[in-house]
Amino acid sequence: MKSNPASDHVYFNDGFKCSTISINTNIAEQNGGSGSGSVGGGSQGSKEFILTEDGKKVKPPLSTIECTRSWLQDAGKRTFNRKTLHKRLPILRWLPHYSSEDAIGDLVAGITVGLTVIPQALAYAGIAGLPVAYGLYGSFLGGFVYVMLGSCKDVPIGPSAIVALLTYQAAQGSWQKSVLLCLLCGIVELLMGVFGLGFLIDFVSGPVSSGFTSAVSLIILTSQIQSILGISAKGNTFVEIWRQVFQNIGNTRASDTILGITCIVVLLMMRMLPSCKIGSDQQELNSRFQRIVNKLLWIIGTARNAILVIVCCFMGYLLHSEEHGTPFAVVGAIPAGLPSIQLPPISLSSNESSNGEAQSFIDMVRSMGSGLIVVPLISLMENIAICKAFANGKSVDASQELIAIGTANIFNSFVQGFPGTGALSRGAVNNASGVRTPLSNIYSGALVMVALVFLTPYFYFIPRPTLAAIIISAVVFMVEVKVVKPMWRAKKSDLVPGIGTFFACLVLPLEWGILIGVGLNVIFILYHAARPKLSTELLSTQSGNEYLMITPDRCLIFPSVDYVRNLVNKHSMRQNVPVVIDASHVYGADFTAATVIESLLSDFNKREQLLFFYNLKPSICAIFEQVSATQFVVYYEEHQLDELLKKHHYEQKRLETA
Amino acid sequence: MKSNPASDHVYFNDGFKCSTISINTNIAEQNGGSGSGSVGGGSQGSKEFILTEDGKKVKPPLSTIECTRSWLQDAGKRTFNRKTLHKRLPILRWLPHYSSEDAIGDLVAGITVGLTVIPQALAYAGIAGLPVAYGLYGSFLGGFVYVMLGSCKDVPIGPSAIVALLTYQAAQGSWQKSVLLCLLCGIVELLMGVFGLGFLIDFVSGPVSSGFTSAVSLIILTSQIQSILGISAKGNTFVEIWRQVFQNIGNTRASDTILGITCIVVLLMMRMLPSCKIGSDQQELNSRFQRIVNKLLWIIGTARNAILVIVCCFMGYLLHSEEHGTPFAVVGAIPAGLPSIQLPPISLSSNESSNGEAQSFIDMVRSMGSGLIVVPLISLMENIAICKAFANGKSVDASQELIAIGTANIFNSFVQGFPGTGALSRGAVNNASGVRTPLSNIYSGALVMVALVFLTPYFYFIPRPTLAAIIISAVVFMVEVKVVKPMWRAKKSDLVPGIGTFFACLVLPLEWGILIGVGLNVIFILYHAARPKLSTELLSTQSGNEYLMITPDRCLIFPSVDYVRNLVNKHSMRQNVPVVIDASHVYGADFTAATVIESLLSDFNKREQLLFFYNLKPSICAIFEQVSATQFVVYYEEHQLDELLKKHHYEQKRLETA
Repeated sequence: MKSNPASDHVYFNDGFKCSTISINTNIAEQNGGSGSGSVGGGSQGSKEFILTEDGKKVKPPLSTIECTRSWLQDAGKRTFNRKTLHKRLPILRWLPHYSSEDAIGDLVAGITVGLTVIPQALAYAGIAGLPVAYGLYGSFLGGFVYVMLGSCKDVPIGPSAIVALLTYQAAQGSWQKSVLLCLLCGIVELLMGVFGLGFLIDFVSGPVSSGFTSAVSLIILTSQIQSILGISAKGNTFVEIWRQVFQNIGNTRASDTILGITCIVVLLMMRMLPSCKIGSDQQELNSRFQRIVNKLLWIIGTARNAILVIVCCFMGYLLHSEEHGTPFAVVGAIPAGLPSIQLPPISLSSNESSNGEAQSFIDMVRSMGSGLIVVPLISLMENIAICKAFANGKSVDASQELIAIGTANIFNSFVQGFPGTGALSRGAVNNASGVRTPLSNIYSGALVMVALVFLTPYFYFIPRPTLAAIIISAVVFMVEVKVVKPMWRAKKSDLVPGIGTFFACLVLPLEWGILIGVGLNVIFILYHAARPKLSTELLSTQSGNEYLMITPDRCLIFPSVDYVRNLVNKHSMRQNVPVVIDASHVYGADFTAATVIESLLSDFNKREQLLFFYNLKPSICAIFEQVSATQFVVYYEEHQLDELLKKHHYEQKRLETA
Repeated sequence: MKSNPASDHVYFNDGFKCSTISINTNIAEQNGGSGSGSVGGGSQGSKEFILTEDGKKVKPPLSTIECTRSWLQDAGKRTFNRKTLHKRLPILRWLPHYSSEDAIGDLVAGITVGLTVIPQALAYAGIAGLPVAYGLYGSFLGGFVYVMLGSCKDVPIGPSAIVALLTYQAAQGSWQKSVLLCLLCGIVELLMGVFGLGFLIDFVSGPVSSGFTSAVSLIILTSQIQSILGISAKGNTFVEIWRQVFQNIGNTRASDTILGITCIVVLLMMRMLPSCKIGSDQQELNSRFQRIVNKLLWIIGTARNAILVIVCCFMGYLLHSEEHGTPFAVVGAIPAGLPSIQLPPISLSSNESSNGEAQSFIDMVRSMGSGLIVVPLISLMENIAICKAFANGKSVDASQELIAIGTANIFNSFVQGFPGTGALSRGAVNNASGVRTPLSNIYSGALVMVALVFLTPYFYFIPRPTLAAIIISAVVFMVEVKVVKPMWRAKKSDLVPGIGTFFACLVLPLEWGILIGVGLNVIFILYHAARPKLSTELLSTQSGNEYLMITPDRCLIFPSVDYVRNLVNKHSMRQNVPVVIDASHVYGADFTAATVIESLLSDFNKREQLLFFYNLKPSICAIFEQVSATQFVVYYEEHQLDELLKKHHYEQKRLETA
């Protein structure tokens, strides 16, 4: 580096000679009043394309043996220190401080969720194309596991409508495949958690997530129409199912339809009860009676599914006659008692499989296809959605949640459960019931076990239209129509991935739909990286020299640099004055950028036009100078430009030509 | 919008009420001395994530009929105006000003390139697995087309080593398929040009391109080893071919090997001739004799391939005997005369196809697979590389180049040519010979036609090892080892896609290799978008109020906002002072960002911690306020922070707690 006494902050690069430079780049201190010390620099971001900070502590290099030893020590410390243990076994964080208030909160919430999970489990088993008992099998053991490993108090592990639909698409309604899928998804989730792949769901944007959820809700709703009408309509996609429904609409059974629609209306009305309050809005001003009525309304509203199932079940029992059976479709016989603990099925005999041919483990896995990736990812999405909704600003540990739901699914597969996760609707119930820790899962799990042991004989008479009504009145609120308006107002281009995902999910298999949405979003990001915006301004220095200031608004990386080079050349040739590239917003560059900047420099050299860089970060200087054979000049304070122009005899030449 | 007389530049958002605001955001004017007018704003970049500029002229809205009419008028103007015509028929730009100097330059360059293209065409036909004559068939008509449509003076259309290898991989050495591939690739290129898809190659970064070129060169080199050794070794990938070579190494024919290696050595030595100059470096100081010798050295060096072929061909003729044939493999009989003009073959009879089964058009296209996309893209890449190398800062029109090489390939397919493009090695020869316009293609094309009409009988004796030597001594310099060192120094992470592409291309089919490289690069971009860097600093206002300044370094878009929210919450909770987010570098935001910022605001509200935005662009304000129900406060000048803190009773509270 040539030191220049006249201008201390100007930086001349001559090929490979430069090493270190001292430049005042602490922008915050320049702008933000009297700085009183840095908190820590917060460099947890991507280390790519980033301004290296001065003053970082760099460890002295170690020999290989030392390195290995210290790595082993570090790894040992990492594995066994208190913080990691608390992170990986979150129960250790809250159990020592568990209070009686926590116990009451968890008990109430656990029982409320339990009253919701039993009817939902019966219903969602239908979405997965399985006998209703399998829903209950997947609703208790996973919760017990989550108590140990789960980091989020509001998550109630169990079947969810979306995951049930994905299970149906991957396992085609075979219980053996569903249970194997549960095991395999659990393993995939666990591995993803261990390898920290939870960040993948960051790439599902809000609009894509809304489009996906809305489409899934419509498909689930559609799949339940057949139960309401008492007809049979099979199909994988939205369009297929509706075509089947219209073909079979002549076979509609009036009693099923009347019961189903009545149940939907009743449920929607009961849903409004918790928000109907008598007396004043402020609890303290109400009389004891008013408070009890309000609490009662809340309980009835929250436990509406359980109440409806009990009422309809009793009705079914009363209307049942030995001769004519029941006037509407009922759930039928459910094997009593807890499921046996056994290995998940790893092969199908010829009479177990749908096509009459025996299937090996490989065949079963192959038939699940992309479901093995999609089910874990969507499970995580739904689970994290609960965590975020009620986190109150605390950060959510996606990896730990993956480990927790993965382990829960692995255990569930040994009691013939199908894949589950934290279901959004029950998460809301859990939170509203005042849950304090994940321990509430114990109570809801226990309630499910009680139901399995003592109540299965009575489940016989539960009408199928009632279960369909429970599903429909839950998913109808998941169609996110409301989100379109603010999206349209805030950023119209975000509607493209959103609506694209929605329609793609309706007409294609779900995994394709969400992939298309993510793909559209990735294209937006790539386009954004490839086409930065340059603003150009013709300015004058204090001595009256005109120059062209070109300001790119983001990093110079490979898809954009050629474009930038073209634009800079174009504008520069048009003006023929010295050009300054303001690199204040350029926070990163790569090797391709360096080579293209080198071409740009030689373009300017050939034209004998001057090119300076203003405010180029030292870390980017360092990248450019490795490639650049041509001299390039960087300055960091405005007044230096005049000196530079003088030095390059620009002033003189300007006068000569004038 | 609530107007606040005390602080004119502070912006309060209350839900959906705000409309317009007047804020001084002209940063360039603040920094850059006395601005003397804007050149045009240069808003040609992506319109996504971009600061909208004030003062833009917006057309008044028109009625639908008016719109249609004006669109038609515009379209008409666009199609027929002078500028578009000049853009789409570049010959109109240079032909009217064509001078005698241009004519001489083009003639010399055309003949020099012609002397290079004839031996290269013969050799590259071998890479494509075709009889040598096909190389010549593809080397004249395309050039004539390029004269009309080509926008870059240095591009010599014809076979290239890389495209020949890709042709071999797609057409498996069948001439019918190669010719059909030529037609289809031409159509794909033309369509890509018309639809402006040339930008796709922007996503091939320097390192990926280097890795790909190096791997292809090694594969081509490997494929020629068999000719040098006089053995037969077939295979698609690097590893396969080497395995075959080692299996057959016992059959090596000494005469072929000796001739081949001698040719390589001679070529490498002749290659150095143009840089060997006698006399002074400055031409003017040299005597006439010295100048003539220098020119002669240059000509011998540049026409080395042609000279070597002529010498070896003559040698083959002399060594030929009726009884024993020639002591080394020769090219053999070539049909004399120009190729017939006919439709490209669109089906194969059973004795034409390799597997003995008749193939329809569909079968042929299916067997080419991804070659139909890869060949056009790589052709464009090589072509644009020439344009950029000699453009001297002029911008390169990728779309026009696609149209030109597409049309050239379509025409070539009617004279049984295989896919071609501007070959990098001949582009350099063209430029060094002083080419002035694309017209030079006429002369090289004419030379090829002369060779086809008069010289084919003499081509019989050209030794195959000589052609292999020509290829090897050309591609050996395309292995870009030199680029590794500056890449390592400038940006080590760029070695990952580079070396990844290199090895992937060696062991996998080429299209997979380059896709893996591009994929790795895209992952870098996405990671970069997902993990911005936040710098945090604990600062004090002039009145001594402490606050935490958090500065994210780039756009807030969906993969990163949750991460940003977590980090902001974490640092804020640790400090418990008012927090300011400095949004100077935040040039864009999307709907997901808006919803997450809304959650962030409510996190802060629940904690009763203050959160302000500093320097948030009005366009981003507009996005946030569509989603945000919570009030958020933006200020644009430093001194306003104290007023804001006062207004929010922070000062008072601070004193109370103290």
